[in-house]
Amino acid sequence: MTLEELTKQIEKKRSFLCIGLDVDLEKIPKHLHEKEDPIFAFNKEIIDKTQHLAIAYKPNTAFYEAYGIKGWKALQKTISYLKENYPEIFIIADAKRGDIGNTSTRYAKAFYEEFPCDALTIAPYMGRDSVEPFLEFKDKYAILLGLTSNPGSLDFQLQETKEGALYEKVLKTALNWDNSQNLMFVIGATKPEYFKNIRKIAPDNFLLVPGVGAQGGELDKVCEYGFNKNCGLMINSSRGIIYASKKEDFADAAAKKAKDLQQEMEKILIARNFIRN
Amino acid sequence: MTLEELTKQIEKKRSFLCIGLDVDLEKIPKHLHEKEDPIFAFNKEIIDKTQHLAIAYKPNTAFYEAYGIKGWKALQKTISYLKENYPEIFIIADAKRGDIGNTSTRYAKAFYEEFPCDALTIAPYMGRDSVEPFLEFKDKYAILLGLTSNPGSLDFQLQETKEGALYEKVLKTALNWDNSQNLMFVIGATKPEYFKNIRKIAPDNFLLVPGVGAQGGELDKVCEYGFNKNCGLMINSSRGIIYASKKEDFADAAAKKAKDLQQEMEKILIARNFIRN
Repeated sequence: MTLEELTKQIEKKRSFLCIGLDVDLEKIPKHLHEKEDPIFAFNKEIIDKTQHLAIAYKPNTAFYEAYGIKGWKALQKTISYLKENYPEIFIIADAKRGDIGNTSTRYAKAFYEEFPCDALTIAPYMGRDSVEPFLEFKDKYAILLGLTSNPGSLDFQLQETKEGALYEKVLKTALNWDNSQNLMFVIGATKPEYFKNIRKIAPDNFLLVPGVGAQGGELDKVCEYGFNKNCGLMINSSRGIIYASKKEDFADAAAKKAKDLQQEMEKILIARNFIRN
Repeated sequence: MTLEELTKQIEKKRSFLCIGLDVDLEKIPKHLHEKEDPIFAFNKEIIDKTQHLAIAYKPNTAFYEAYGIKGWKALQKTISYLKENYPEIFIIADAKRGDIGNTSTRYAKAFYEEFPCDALTIAPYMGRDSVEPFLEFKDKYAILLGLTSNPGSLDFQLQETKEGALYEKVLKTALNWDNSQNLMFVIGATKPEYFKNIRKIAPDNFLLVPGVGAQGGELDKVCEYGFNKNCGLMINSSRGIIYASKKEDFADAAAKKAKDLQQEMEKILIARNFIRN
C-alpha cells in the first residue's frame, strides 16, 4: 500500500485507529469455542463490525505462535480475509523480528509474501544489516521499535549515548539507511512528552502508537506533538476494544469502543483542518 | 534440561558444538525435493549423522517462517524428532523474540511448550519486563542478544552509555533480573577480543557463539577468554556444516565438517583439563 492510499483512508474513515488482534482463547466468548477455528471466528466478527472505523489491524504474532500450527493457520486466514474483503485496510504483523542480513530477508519473505502484510514491527538492536532487508520491498513498511510503552523501555531505550538517548540514536541512525522512506516507528502513547522531540528527528514518518487505553496513554497529548501533515499517526488499541465484552455481543461492544475512539479522532482531524466538519 | 546435564553432554561427546539448522530449499540437494517434507527430510539426515558430534541444534525460525505453515510443520517435526530420538540434545529456537510482558509470556509458551525447545534467543531492546517472562520457566533458558556477529552490531551495541558500551550495560542489567541463573548470552565469534571483558561481567553464564566458519570467527581466540569452569560455550556453525555438499552425500559431508570442529574442541577441552586425553 502506498502512503497516499493510507492517508486517503484516514480522510475517508475520519479515523487513524489501528485495532490490535491479540487473541487469547481464555478471553474470547465461550460460544466461539464450538467453532472449527475459534481464533479466526473471533477476528472475523471483530473485523466485520469495526472495519469502517479502523484504518489498520495489527495481529501480534506471539498470540498466534502460542497456539502452534493451529495459531498460524488462524493468522493466515485472518490476513486472507482482510485482503479479500477489505483490501484498503493496512495490515501490520506485530512480530518484532530482526536478525543478521540473510536471515532478516527470510523474515521479510515470511511477512510480506507468505503472510502478506503491509508492514512488520522490527527490533533495532542488531543494527543496519538487520533492518535494511525489510526496507527493500516497494510499498511495504518496516516499523522500527523506537520508544516503547512498557516499563522496561527505561532500561536501555532511555540510556544516554553520545548522540542523545538510545531511542534518539536509533531514529537518527535508521533515517540514514537505504530506503528509509519505508520506515515507520513504534512510539508508546505512555510517553506523550517525548513526541515533540521525536517529531524534530522524524518529522515525516508514520508513528505506530500503542498504549492508548489499557496501558494508560492519552490520545490528545499524543496528537498535540505527534500529528504531522499526513496525520502521521496510527493509534493502536488492542485489549480495550476486542475484549469490551465476553458475551455474544462482543463484536458490537468492540465496535462501540472503536466508535468512541474514532469520534475522538474525527474531532482532532477536524480541529487540525485535515478533514472538513 | 539442567546446566549439569548440558555440561555432562560436553564431557561425554568431547564437544561444545551447536549446529544451526537454517534450511533453505534452494540450497538443499535436489533429490530431497521429491520427499513429502523436504525440510524435515534434510534435517533428519543431518541430525542422524551429526548427533554424536554436537551438543545442541539451533533451528533459526526465520528459515521456517519463510515457508509459512509448511515451514512451521517442518520445525515441529524436527523438534519432535530430536526429543524422541536424542533426548540429551539441547534445542535452541533462534527466534530473537521479545515484547511487553503479557506478550512475551505468549512467546515463552510458544517455544517452551508448543514447540518444546530448551532455550530461545531474545532481543533486549524492550528491557526487563520483556525478558523476565522467559526466565520464569524451570530448566529453560533465555539467550539474550549481547554482542552479535554482524556488521550492524556497531550501530547500537557498541555505543557508549554511562555504564560502558550498550552491550555491557545489557549484560550487567540483565544479570540483576529475577531468575538470571536462566540467562545465557549471544556473543559473536567475529569479536573475540571482547570475550575477556564479557567474562568479567558474566563469568558463569553460557555463551552461544555464532560466526565461526562462514562469518570468519576463530575458535581458539574465542576459547582463550570465553572458556569457563563449565566450558560455558556453545559454538554454533550453520552454513559451514549443513551445506558442505549439495549432493546425495550431504549428510556425510556435514558430519565430516562437524567432526573437524569437534576434534578442535576436543583438543581445547583436553588442554584445559576439562576432559582427559
